[in-house]
Amino acid sequence: MMRQAGRYLKDYRDIRQKVSFLQLCKNVDLAAEVSLQPLRIVGVDAVIFFSDILIPVEAMGVTVELTDKGPEIAHPVRSNADVQKLRAPDPADDMPFVGAILRRLRTELRDQVPLIGFSGAPWTLASYMIEGGGSKSFAEIKKMAFSEPATLHALLDRLASTIISYLRFQVESGAQVVQLFDTWAGELTRRDYETFALPVTKRIFEEIGARVPRILYINGCSNILELMASSGADVLSVDWRIPIGEARARVGDRVALQGNLDPCVLLGSASNLTATADRILKDAGPGGHIFNLGHGILPMTPVDNAKALVEFVKSYRHRQ
Amino acid sequence: MMRQAGRYLKDYRDIRQKVSFLQLCKNVDLAAEVSLQPLRIVGVDAVIFFSDILIPVEAMGVTVELTDKGPEIAHPVRSNADVQKLRAPDPADDMPFVGAILRRLRTELRDQVPLIGFSGAPWTLASYMIEGGGSKSFAEIKKMAFSEPATLHALLDRLASTIISYLRFQVESGAQVVQLFDTWAGELTRRDYETFALPVTKRIFEEIGARVPRILYINGCSNILELMASSGADVLSVDWRIPIGEARARVGDRVALQGNLDPCVLLGSASNLTATADRILKDAGPGGHIFNLGHGILPMTPVDNAKALVEFVKSYRHRQ
Repeated sequence: MMRQAGRYLKDYRDIRQKVSFLQLCKNVDLAAEVSLQPLRIVGVDAVIFFSDILIPVEAMGVTVELTDKGPEIAHPVRSNADVQKLRAPDPADDMPFVGAILRRLRTELRDQVPLIGFSGAPWTLASYMIEGGGSKSFAEIKKMAFSEPATLHALLDRLASTIISYLRFQVESGAQVVQLFDTWAGELTRRDYETFALPVTKRIFEEIGARVPRILYINGCSNILELMASSGADVLSVDWRIPIGEARARVGDRVALQGNLDPCVLLGSASNLTATADRILKDAGPGGHIFNLGHGILPMTPVDNAKALVEFVKSYRHRQ
Repeated sequence: MMRQAGRYLKDYRDIRQKVSFLQLCKNVDLAAEVSLQPLRIVGVDAVIFFSDILIPVEAMGVTVELTDKGPEIAHPVRSNADVQKLRAPDPADDMPFVGAILRRLRTELRDQVPLIGFSGAPWTLASYMIEGGGSKSFAEIKKMAFSEPATLHALLDRLASTIISYLRFQVESGAQVVQLFDTWAGELTRRDYETFALPVTKRIFEEIGARVPRILYINGCSNILELMASSGADVLSVDWRIPIGEARARVGDRVALQGNLDPCVLLGSASNLTATADRILKDAGPGGHIFNLGHGILPMTPVDNAKALVEFVKSYRHRQ
């Protein structure tokens, strides 16, 4: 489940009381512990290492604060000079804890379930860097796109290089799958997606290669689904707004699909939850489907509902 | 242009310095003045009366505060008892200023350009009432949808009744077009849109009738476009994410289309602005198209860009 290690789990909140979010990302023991909590408590069938998508951004020399209201970047990247000042991090030197967490998890998991690595994608990371945090309108990054596209392309290229070395490092450290989160690329027109986000996504997937399955997630992906299918991803992770059967019809068998339960369904009744999950499983068809949420699990999700969902999905194939 | 009377205009900001947002909505002289500013300054070819979508919500007995961060409702509607307490307002008694503003505008406009009335749609107004303000996840309204659907349906029905009398009152007061903003209905799956938002939308359009053109706007509408086309709307106002030619191909000639420039394009270069507007005009085809933004104009929009856009669009037909 997307964002499966997190605030909806009491065991996670207990640990977070003691350390800040960034400290937790960099503490190998604690990050490994919270990564494993969803496996132990909820029974999911894959583990994603606990981290934040802005870790490589910080390693590029940008000061990042993670507050309760989301990420804050006091000095956003707004000019070509700002872009030129960014560092090209060496993951082993600059983010050694990521390697250590993944190695620890692989050891602990003993190949019971696969271990997933991840990174934010260039467009999404650039949006935080340029906006200075989360955004509703993405006005600053789009202003740059529509007035200084060369500066934005330079930033996206640097991000792509960083992400390639970061994901390679994750694979070398034990990640068996990689997921690229381009959460905010669904805010683009198809043309702008093709101009700004897709080329760097393709480059990343090409340079990672087929040694591990590559998953691409975009929130609000309906208008760019075919372009996503051309990115080199092996799996497209889709949000809940598009019926998954329709996504399958549009992309054919070229890629697997992941998704796509509205995370808010986990806040409702158990009967509505299983009925909705059942419809998704049927709609997705018999193969090439990884059941998941269409976006991150919400902090107020009752753990019992998360457990019930996992149990229902696991038992589904046996019932067919 | 959506949200054309607003903060990007200095003349608007000068007036807003003197009164609160809600005071401005209720002051006939000032609301008429800011409604007319975009016509005078930017040269748009229609006037929408200045108001807030939460005006009828306040008239239903909900205390609303409009802050710089958006609307705040201290006592959100969360139970059936809360729904039963809501008033059924009489627009002429409870929102007389709306009628007065529209009558004033019709007099001042002397039919130079059409006057547009509007309301929030039930799903979108319910989301503010239940969430207690704006939301990213719409967790509270969806939690109600997925656990107590009867309560939500009761609220949506009451809202529909209020909106019908509110829009009729607007038409009687001089509105020549009505636009229904269901801004947040694009957050629903197709099935949930069909269950919760569409039936009340249909009822509103049916009871308003064909005496004035009826426009339906939804942000992120791509997955529910055909359902929107079945709502009884004469015009579908679409966001920028769907190519407008594709929207046309999907809905055929059943409805006119409005849209769909990304408001952020107004923050970029003039050359990119006109090139993008030109593509939309060509893509939309020769008829049944109202050029507009795909969402509200942003406060940081340079007025010269807004003027250049209006001029470009107005001159486009002559150049064909």
